[in-house]
Amino acid sequence: MAAPLEREATLECIACLWFRVLSCLVFGRRCPPSTHLYEQTMWPDRRIIELFKTEFPIVQAPMAGIMDAELVIAAAQGGALGSLPCAMLTPEKAREQVNIIRQRVSAPLNLNFFCHKAVDADPRREAGWKQRLAPYYKELGLDPAAPVNAANRSPFDPAMCEVIEELKPEMVSFHFGLPDSALVRRVKAAGCIVIAAATIVKEAIWLEENGADVIIAQGAEAGGHRGMFLTENIGEQPGTFALVPQVVDAVKVPVIAAGGIADGRGIAAAFALGAAGVQIGTAYLRCPESRVSAPAQAALSQALDDSTVITNVMTGRPARGIPNRVMREIGPISADAPAFPHAATGLAPLKAAAEKLGKVDFTNLWAGQAVRLGRDMPASELTRGMAEAALARLRQLAA
Amino acid sequence: MAAPLEREATLECIACLWFRVLSCLVFGRRCPPSTHLYEQTMWPDRRIIELFKTEFPIVQAPMAGIMDAELVIAAAQGGALGSLPCAMLTPEKAREQVNIIRQRVSAPLNLNFFCHKAVDADPRREAGWKQRLAPYYKELGLDPAAPVNAANRSPFDPAMCEVIEELKPEMVSFHFGLPDSALVRRVKAAGCIVIAAATIVKEAIWLEENGADVIIAQGAEAGGHRGMFLTENIGEQPGTFALVPQVVDAVKVPVIAAGGIADGRGIAAAFALGAAGVQIGTAYLRCPESRVSAPAQAALSQALDDSTVITNVMTGRPARGIPNRVMREIGPISADAPAFPHAATGLAPLKAAAEKLGKVDFTNLWAGQAVRLGRDMPASELTRGMAEAALARLRQLAA
Repeated sequence: MAAPLEREATLECIACLWFRVLSCLVFGRRCPPSTHLYEQTMWPDRRIIELFKTEFPIVQAPMAGIMDAELVIAAAQGGALGSLPCAMLTPEKAREQVNIIRQRVSAPLNLNFFCHKAVDADPRREAGWKQRLAPYYKELGLDPAAPVNAANRSPFDPAMCEVIEELKPEMVSFHFGLPDSALVRRVKAAGCIVIAAATIVKEAIWLEENGADVIIAQGAEAGGHRGMFLTENIGEQPGTFALVPQVVDAVKVPVIAAGGIADGRGIAAAFALGAAGVQIGTAYLRCPESRVSAPAQAALSQALDDSTVITNVMTGRPARGIPNRVMREIGPISADAPAFPHAATGLAPLKAAAEKLGKVDFTNLWAGQAVRLGRDMPASELTRGMAEAALARLRQLAA
Repeated sequence: MAAPLEREATLECIACLWFRVLSCLVFGRRCPPSTHLYEQTMWPDRRIIELFKTEFPIVQAPMAGIMDAELVIAAAQGGALGSLPCAMLTPEKAREQVNIIRQRVSAPLNLNFFCHKAVDADPRREAGWKQRLAPYYKELGLDPAAPVNAANRSPFDPAMCEVIEELKPEMVSFHFGLPDSALVRRVKAAGCIVIAAATIVKEAIWLEENGADVIIAQGAEAGGHRGMFLTENIGEQPGTFALVPQVVDAVKVPVIAAGGIADGRGIAAAFALGAAGVQIGTAYLRCPESRVSAPAQAALSQALDDSTVITNVMTGRPARGIPNRVMREIGPISADAPAFPHAATGLAPLKAAAEKLGKVDFTNLWAGQAVRLGRDMPASELTRGMAEAALARLRQLAA
């Protein structure tokens, strides 16, 4: 499917001229304007397609904890850039997942990492948090003093950088800023294109100055963790509509729009705002290739435009999702939540125990404000469908 | 400028065919695709233009307190639907302003009203608020016990409805829902098209069921008062990008996008999302025809993408603006603020006294998240420039 993209520039003009001559003979004065034979493969901004070498300028968003190689493969087969979230993986597990992907699909691959500044758990805050959660522990018959086997959420480090140097993914994306400049240099030296997320213009400028090749402008609509790293004020976070053009104006690198995009209309609108691509997460949650549990799927399928909020109680960092019981009863925002990722540690036993009972009381239900636009279909089909709808929409806008 | 819109359907096809033949002869294989001679006046969705009978599908947003007939006239002369905010006007003053507009421009006109449920001031809350503000009164040498001549912010009522029946504006728009059905019927019987704002899908459905002919989907990026009337949770308010397509899917009437739109890119993106028009406010604040004071203009011209927040301390209802001193020191959100519009009453003497000193410590600095995209230019020129940029952008998207 990549070939027509290359041929289009030379073939399109003469072909469409003759097509128009014929159209006019057949339809008379009412022949449809601006119909190009090869137009179905044209994007108004080709920088991301050319840089990523993907069929479509769509990035399947990495969503740690609810997906693995299966979704990456399916999205890549559909023409998107598949992204493997590695923030909760060990180097060994990341290597294993990449090997699975490489065996099944020859498409370019993105590996995603968190790069927050790690802070040690503060024993006093942890104790306060445990106390806050004590009624839930009691209700579920759990021992609050039992050691917790919490999920890993370490920042990108030299050990992971070695994995990158070994596996050489085509793209590496970071959330919460960028790692130390020495690590960024090593990632680039390995031949990887560096992608990073900004939630405000100031962050976008910082990322460009510090080596990002591509910037994701993450609007406030986006599900999951806010990528914010130079600001802590949730109330000031701009929506996608305001953020994208201002980031585009502020940086020279290509910008990918994220937040509230879940269909062809959203993709077309992102290009209108000046983006060269889109990152889509929530829309992929309802694909059979995701690892979202059945009770979480039920919550997703019932969510409306105003069903999500930004919370800090699930991990200690602001993230958007559908309110679960603990978000409703303690949050969504609480000063008691320990720093990222330690808030999640106290919740881990509750999450596991409740999930065994089929409940999502303590489960992250990350989702963006366009969750309602999601559909139950394979990720490959979803990707292709969204891309085709976007191209049709773009043609329609100038018709 | 309206005429070519009508001729386009018949002329465009043959003209553009010959244009393409010539282009191909001149440019060879690299002739620009989809260039139509009359395309500069085409909009992909013409419902709003045809309903409003304006040159462009742009509504200049009514902004009570910082504009009057001058901005309405200038925006209308530029091809937008000019909107006079009447929420803070007496019937006499509204009549006077409309007469000025009608004498100067023959374009269609929109009159805008608030339609909140009026609540009496709660003496205990008022007293608490006054106490909260006491240090400011002291600092400015004001007597907190002096009677306040607060600005009128009455909901639309039978007296205003008589003004509508007399003046017959082509459009009437409402904020905070719709007035009683008897009043809505009278407005419609006077021949006015009824426009109303929704901040969530549920509100849009309610508005359509209760008589709105056009719905404004007001995304969280928008400056000024949130139009919310079936929800009070600010944290759940969707951004423009997520809201517009979901409202479009939920109602049959044409949808106007608002929030974060300040240039041609934003207008084009709104159409991509399914809107049939846009409402633009903040971008008009820096026009010489607005009544924004010099110190407030200074704040606007320095504002960035993350410079605005939603506050309830200025009036008692959530509204987005640049933080002034009282928002920073007491808010932005405070449970102490009396119900709308009574919070503004206690602030009124402080506002007046500080403004005399050239300070905006207590002045509403309503602005949306795209405030940075504003430019200092006459409203007529701004309107035409945004419309032309939008059309150019739409053509470019399918190029």
